[in-house]
Amino acid sequence: MIKFAAIEQAHQRIKPYINETPVVSSELLNQWLGHEIYFKAECLQKIGAFKARGGCNAVQSLLLSHSSVKRIVANSSGNHAQAVAWAGAQFKIPVTIYMPSFASKVKAQATRSYGAEVVLLDTRQEVDQAVEDAAKQDGVFWIPPFNDEAVIAGQGTAAFEALQQINQPLDAVFAPCGGGGLISGTLVATRAMQPQTQVIAVEPQTADDAYRSYKSKKIQRLPDAPKTLADGAMTLSIGPKTFEHIRMLNDFYTVDEQSIAYWTQWLQHLLKMHIEPTSAMAMAGVHQWLQMNSLKQRVLVILSGGNIDAHMMEKIWATDYLTKRPSLF
Amino acid sequence: MIKFAAIEQAHQRIKPYINETPVVSSELLNQWLGHEIYFKAECLQKIGAFKARGGCNAVQSLLLSHSSVKRIVANSSGNHAQAVAWAGAQFKIPVTIYMPSFASKVKAQATRSYGAEVVLLDTRQEVDQAVEDAAKQDGVFWIPPFNDEAVIAGQGTAAFEALQQINQPLDAVFAPCGGGGLISGTLVATRAMQPQTQVIAVEPQTADDAYRSYKSKKIQRLPDAPKTLADGAMTLSIGPKTFEHIRMLNDFYTVDEQSIAYWTQWLQHLLKMHIEPTSAMAMAGVHQWLQMNSLKQRVLVILSGGNIDAHMMEKIWATDYLTKRPSLF
Repeated sequence: MIKFAAIEQAHQRIKPYINETPVVSSELLNQWLGHEIYFKAECLQKIGAFKARGGCNAVQSLLLSHSSVKRIVANSSGNHAQAVAWAGAQFKIPVTIYMPSFASKVKAQATRSYGAEVVLLDTRQEVDQAVEDAAKQDGVFWIPPFNDEAVIAGQGTAAFEALQQINQPLDAVFAPCGGGGLISGTLVATRAMQPQTQVIAVEPQTADDAYRSYKSKKIQRLPDAPKTLADGAMTLSIGPKTFEHIRMLNDFYTVDEQSIAYWTQWLQHLLKMHIEPTSAMAMAGVHQWLQMNSLKQRVLVILSGGNIDAHMMEKIWATDYLTKRPSLF
Repeated sequence: MIKFAAIEQAHQRIKPYINETPVVSSELLNQWLGHEIYFKAECLQKIGAFKARGGCNAVQSLLLSHSSVKRIVANSSGNHAQAVAWAGAQFKIPVTIYMPSFASKVKAQATRSYGAEVVLLDTRQEVDQAVEDAAKQDGVFWIPPFNDEAVIAGQGTAAFEALQQINQPLDAVFAPCGGGGLISGTLVATRAMQPQTQVIAVEPQTADDAYRSYKSKKIQRLPDAPKTLADGAMTLSIGPKTFEHIRMLNDFYTVDEQSIAYWTQWLQHLLKMHIEPTSAMAMAGVHQWLQMNSLKQRVLVILSGGNIDAHMMEKIWATDYLTKRPSLF
């Protein structure tokens, strides 16, 4: 497991570049549920997601440990691509992102708008091969999306900041789990700052590889790309580095697609923020957990981001869930 | 026209109850358009809309001028209903809201959740009659949605705050126009604080009564309820008090439904906020205005709110506008 000091260092390094995102809550939601829920709004982070933290720390770690970084490469069709493109731009390092050509145009466009070169290839296999080949060149470095100490330490700064902002003892901290970078960093920050606080991950039922890895104490892999609204949690498997953290979690929940859509609608409506389904998924896990707690709980939820394409928004809002207000019974 | 001092007084009065909402901007949008655009985020206001300002000031004005206020009544199916319900609750005054039974369940529910009694009646005529009858009773007072000095002064505090927050000379301030309360207050605040700044209203093409009133210098009325995504701008006509302000505006734009949907998507995406179509409509007006300005402009847009029902969200996101990024050409 990474050390808490790595998160403190990461925070010092990335602070001048990232946003100290607000911690928000909804009076109505707290009143309806009878608990106290805080949300760390990483949708307001640079590039619209917590991934900017890990990307920024990884680029800086590279620059500290290698004297001639000529180019940074990454393979991603999502927020990690934008995070690396943005982080490279902060330090004037050229970036190439390899993406499958079936990735959304909006994401390729956003990645380019941060100044990165985007190379589109037909299959995911070609993408992975291309980044591997590129990283063999002299002065070219690959930044992995989650299975990396510097990335995990960067992601841990979200919880690190939030715990300081709230400055009260919490009963639990929830975060979504895709490849596991965010929940791993969250675990290390929380254990050091509030050892009594539970740290709990949430994953879609349809993409429950990390949940099954947690339960079986062995990394499990999905056979193929899962179908889920929580597109930040579609990773086929966690990595050995994130698994070392994930196995130490207090609990792990899986949630169904309807709950993900339900909470995306309600959190957008109540918080007035454009939060992505992967973020709402964590709240769906909180809701399950609260059913078993009769005492008033104080909970932090890391809202991972707010990058949602139009097709996803249409799917999320196709059914009206706002007619059924949140309750615990 | 109301005096600037009325806005200053309103701000002093309502400050302990309302949120000082942030002023935000999008680096990407500014880069793409080549201008500097600031957004006053009234979607993060109490009840999710600027209407809390006018409601709160109107209730306090009533309490200052009348010794026995037993009940407050209002007729509205939208944000004004929630604003009056919320403001009444702040001062422990019972509130009754008359609403047409075809109003959305979510809005009736939200109004009730602030502690107001909601009376549903079959037609808008019955609603208007009921509120008129109620206000004839001793100690019962009606708070109108826009054609009222205290309401206008309250709405003007949004621009009042934003101009202080930005603290730089602006070229123009844009706000949506429904009944005209917000744009009227915005005009008075801006004229007093930055006399050189243009104040410009925006309305849907399909609900252009205020635009036609502005052009013809005479209040014009829509024959019947217009169809528009900008449900905050469906008012059939402005009132004599708001007209006195609206006639003094520097300009007035009307925008089509496609632009409203386009800018709702893009502002939600770029600002990561759940903003309503009526707010995005104001940005559509800014976009038209910027086409005629070659010099770099600094603009403030009042984002009116973020209360959107699921059906509206589905309509907004049915077409993918995120594939065509904002530009001026």
